[in-house]
Amino acid sequence: MSYITDKGILLRKAESELSTAPTKDKNLAIEKVCESLEKHRKSILEANLLDIEDAEKNKMAIGLIDRLKLDDERLDDIIGALHQIIELQDPIWKSDQVWTLENGLTISKMTVPLGVIGIIYESRPNVTVDAFGLALKSGNCIMLRGSSSAINSNIALVKAIKEGLKESPISEDIIQFIEETDREYVLEMLRADKYIDLIIPRGGQQLIDFVVENASVPTLQTGSGNCHIFVDDTADLDKGLNIVKNAKTQRVGVCNACETLLVHEKIAGKFLPMVYEELKDIVELRGCVKTKEIIEVRDATESDWKEEFLDYTLAIRVVRDVEDAIEHIQTYSTKHSEAIVTENLANSRIFLRKVDSATVYLNASTRFTDGGVFGFGAEMGISTQKMHARGPVGLDQLVTHKYLILGEGQIRN
Amino acid sequence: MSYITDKGILLRKAESELSTAPTKDKNLAIEKVCESLEKHRKSILEANLLDIEDAEKNKMAIGLIDRLKLDDERLDDIIGALHQIIELQDPIWKSDQVWTLENGLTISKMTVPLGVIGIIYESRPNVTVDAFGLALKSGNCIMLRGSSSAINSNIALVKAIKEGLKESPISEDIIQFIEETDREYVLEMLRADKYIDLIIPRGGQQLIDFVVENASVPTLQTGSGNCHIFVDDTADLDKGLNIVKNAKTQRVGVCNACETLLVHEKIAGKFLPMVYEELKDIVELRGCVKTKEIIEVRDATESDWKEEFLDYTLAIRVVRDVEDAIEHIQTYSTKHSEAIVTENLANSRIFLRKVDSATVYLNASTRFTDGGVFGFGAEMGISTQKMHARGPVGLDQLVTHKYLILGEGQIRN
Repeated sequence: MSYITDKGILLRKAESELSTAPTKDKNLAIEKVCESLEKHRKSILEANLLDIEDAEKNKMAIGLIDRLKLDDERLDDIIGALHQIIELQDPIWKSDQVWTLENGLTISKMTVPLGVIGIIYESRPNVTVDAFGLALKSGNCIMLRGSSSAINSNIALVKAIKEGLKESPISEDIIQFIEETDREYVLEMLRADKYIDLIIPRGGQQLIDFVVENASVPTLQTGSGNCHIFVDDTADLDKGLNIVKNAKTQRVGVCNACETLLVHEKIAGKFLPMVYEELKDIVELRGCVKTKEIIEVRDATESDWKEEFLDYTLAIRVVRDVEDAIEHIQTYSTKHSEAIVTENLANSRIFLRKVDSATVYLNASTRFTDGGVFGFGAEMGISTQKMHARGPVGLDQLVTHKYLILGEGQIRN
Repeated sequence: MSYITDKGILLRKAESELSTAPTKDKNLAIEKVCESLEKHRKSILEANLLDIEDAEKNKMAIGLIDRLKLDDERLDDIIGALHQIIELQDPIWKSDQVWTLENGLTISKMTVPLGVIGIIYESRPNVTVDAFGLALKSGNCIMLRGSSSAINSNIALVKAIKEGLKESPISEDIIQFIEETDREYVLEMLRADKYIDLIIPRGGQQLIDFVVENASVPTLQTGSGNCHIFVDDTADLDKGLNIVKNAKTQRVGVCNACETLLVHEKIAGKFLPMVYEELKDIVELRGCVKTKEIIEVRDATESDWKEEFLDYTLAIRVVRDVEDAIEHIQTYSTKHSEAIVTENLANSRIFLRKVDSATVYLNASTRFTDGGVFGFGAEMGISTQKMHARGPVGLDQLVTHKYLILGEGQIRN
């Protein structure tokens, strides 16, 4: 028996009961966890302080330390997010497909939980609680493996969660946290097909690549967004400018922010100076050769087309037409979110059908790709893969289904 | 450049056009392929004869040689199956979810093709044509790797398919066949994330395990069915007998046939003799200790509970109650199809909710788990995994989706 197997066995035992638990029991359990997090507020913040001290000792970058940090306000937010999950509709044992065969058999395609979800995530300790809440509400057990830099915070949070569960009708075994920080346990998780039904890596591209490369358990890739906006020759340029500014600057560190602007050559002479005037003081602009003939910006290199800047940086390329824009996108996009700004119906049709991304926009900012905005409530991330779930992953995406077939003795002829 | 990469590049080039091809073009292409298969009938059967001769020389088992064999009638069936695919509804660019946000953005969740599907399959050459037809109709390009024992048949079939496509509006590049039979090319396919979006292994458990173990491309596991029927103490025993006989004997070599019968101890004394009378001459019965106290059958061993016999063999176990039956199923089932025969409402509810299989039945034979029976038309197999598609995989399961968002200049606040 190994450490991961032991935890896997506990999860598989807890799975059957959780999968059919009534919504009111699941909501009560989340409520009790909220109360317990309140009660353990002090010990959680103390544990977090240990992580912060270690991080400072290890000279972690200030941005990363900030992501790691918990305070009263952030803990309020974490508890608030759990309260929001209570309000969401239970995604389990619903159907939008029920039909009856000629022989009288009635078939219902019913939603059921996936079973056990594994989460491998980087520094932010709020993921521990968020992911737990989404898993519980969708009837899934969860195995968590956080970053070693957040180990004290995570252990304190999981302790509080388990104490809350003890006061509820739901078993505390539904959540298992990997306290061992050695990387071999990550590898073991990735191969634990018998105990884990789905692994979701939450973190940078390097983590995602490592997980996909090494997992035999099915994975859900979320996150990376190299998003494009194409401004066509018939675009309403004021609308276009407004959209580009919003998608680039409203929040820069997010996956649905715009990273590359593509401009139709016919309006580049007019539109690029508008972009330059509006953004030059807050955004570093990098352009192709044709862009540089119109506005004074830095060179854009091949690597700029590929990069998710997550910063006040925008790459700009002048393209021949909508087909040329689509070709650039198909070459460099991470298939997250892309937009066209146009008043031409034919071009909008071509763009919206041919661009192979999770979300495609006509005349709107890419910033709307978000589970909350879509009305899904909280989300586990934005899937950029094609299998199982694509786009925002909310409660309705954390399920599978089974076919329920009701008969009165039917046999096959 | 490698052999697989070259083919992958051709598929990715063909993908964009096929993904948005009108239904009438796709149907015309399938029609032209039917005509071409008719035209090349003689050369296909000659090529098949070479495979059969090799198989006989290599002393292949007679059952396997039969699966490999093509004749005029089987070729008629293959062409007939393609004609059926023409009749099916196009699964692409449909939506059952369209909604509008407060800010006026309209979001549509539209079905789109997966992109490129890889099929790795064993001897039966009809898979070459079936899989191609399903892929084309669902707008997906396809990379095929068949068994080396069917290499001549498959090359002849693919040649005919490509010649048919040449007479149609669809590019012949949408189908790529791996002629190299060396296993290293299978491994290369399994790691070709850049060129293949989904791999479906079609064959025995060994092939499936090899693919899942080695693939970094997402996989869809189909096939293996160790299916159970539980006859409860309140069951209508005549109905139960009828269902068991049908599920075991109507066709034995299929994944939805019953392999283990579980009988409530209270009615075992009455029901097992009925089963014995009805089946003893055609089915080899193997029983647990309690079964053997009632009817004279061979011992059932631990391995019998695990085995998908695909033959006239049935394992029988006497269980205490519905919970005991569920526990046996959760331990040994491959999560394909399970049935309860009962007149007790509470027990039916417990069984149908708790049994974690793709299809669960009340008072009906397990033999109905089938894409054709479900009304899906042709199928690529029965998925026994939880991710992406579970149960019969028809055209509607060979798709992903994208969110289409239409605005008039909306930005995020």
